[in-house]
Amino acid sequence: MDRLLQVLNAIYPMSHELIEYLAAHIKHRILSRRQFLLRAGHVSRDICFIESGLMRCYYLKDDTEISSWFMKEDDVIVSVESFFQQKISYESIQALETTNLYCISYEELQLLYKTFPEFNFIGRVLTERYYTQSEQRLYSIRMQKSRNRYKHLMDTHPELIMRVPSKYLASYLGVREETLSRLRGRKYL
Amino acid sequence: MDRLLQVLNAIYPMSHELIEYLAAHIKHRILSRRQFLLRAGHVSRDICFIESGLMRCYYLKDDTEISSWFMKEDDVIVSVESFFQQKISYESIQALETTNLYCISYEELQLLYKTFPEFNFIGRVLTERYYTQSEQRLYSIRMQKSRNRYKHLMDTHPELIMRVPSKYLASYLGVREETLSRLRGRKYL
Repeated sequence: MDRLLQVLNAIYPMSHELIEYLAAHIKHRILSRRQFLLRAGHVSRDICFIESGLMRCYYLKDDTEISSWFMKEDDVIVSVESFFQQKISYESIQALETTNLYCISYEELQLLYKTFPEFNFIGRVLTERYYTQSEQRLYSIRMQKSRNRYKHLMDTHPELIMRVPSKYLASYLGVREETLSRLRGRKYL
Repeated sequence: MDRLLQVLNAIYPMSHELIEYLAAHIKHRILSRRQFLLRAGHVSRDICFIESGLMRCYYLKDDTEISSWFMKEDDVIVSVESFFQQKISYESIQALETTNLYCISYEELQLLYKTFPEFNFIGRVLTERYYTQSEQRLYSIRMQKSRNRYKHLMDTHPELIMRVPSKYLASYLGVREETLSRLRGRKYL
C-alpha cells in the first residue's frame, strides 16, 4: 500500500504509529472486471483507495444505466451520501478493469479519526478535494452543452476519454454513442 | 457568536484556548438585503457562518440569473471551488434578508487548522456534511422532474419554500414562476 501512504503523507506527514495502525486495519481487495464494490439498494460500508484500475459509479434512470463518474488509480472512492450517512445507496460502483483497492470500513474510519486526531487533517483535505470536484461536475451539468462537456472532460481528464468504454462515457456526457464518436472524430471543438 | 460556538462544540468539544482564538480571529459582518458577500469574477476569500438571515448563490447562464442554492441561519456559506482553490468564482452570493455573519479568511483558516489540530475534526465533519448536501442536489438535478424537485425541496427544506422569493425559487427548480405558483397551489403532489 505504498502508493496510498505516499498520497496521505503528501497531505500531512504521518507518525510511525499511525502508519502501523493503517497497515493493520486497511484491507486489500482485488475486483475483477465487471465485479461490484457496491450495488444500489445496499449501504456503502467501505471507503477505498484505488491503487490500480478503473471503476465507474452509475445509477438507473427509467431502467437505463447513467454513469455519474469514473475513478482511477490514486482516487478515493465512495458513494458519498450512502457512506457518510450510512444509508441505502441509489448508486452502484463497478470495476471496468481489474482493480486493486485498499479499503477501510465506516466504523474503523471513525475510530481512526478519534484515535489519531492528526488523521482528521488528511481526511479534511481529501474531503475538500472531492467536494470541489463534485461541485465542478454540478457546474458542468448545469452550464454546458454536451459538446462543451466533452471538451471540458478532455481538458481536465484526458485519460478517461482514452480508457472508459464509449457507452459509459456517452451516458455520463448525456449523448448517444454515435454523437460521442462524432465528437471524438473532431478531436477539438 | 454563541450560536456558531454551539454548532462547532456539538461536533467536537473545543478547548478554552481554541474558543479564545476563534473569538479573536472571526469577524462579525452584517449584510443588508441585496448586498453581496461575493461577486462573480472575484475570489471567495472568506468562509462564513450565518447567525441569522438568508442568502442565495447564483450564476449567470445566457444572461439569466440561475439560483444554485439558498443558505440560512446555522449554515456555513462559501463558493466551494473558488474558496478551496482560491480561484476566481463564477458564482455570486447575495443576501436576500438582512444577514448576520461570522467570517474567517482562507489564510486564517489554514493557520487555525495548523495551530489547533482538533479543529480539523470539526472542519472534516462540516465538509462531509456539505459535500453530502451537494451530492443530493446533483442527484435531484439528474433524476427528478421539476414537480418532483419541488416535492423533494418541500420535504427536506420546507422553510426555504416559505422564505425564498418566488423568482429565485423558480430559477433553482428550473421552472417558470407561473409553474411554481401552480405547484404551490396544489400543496402536495
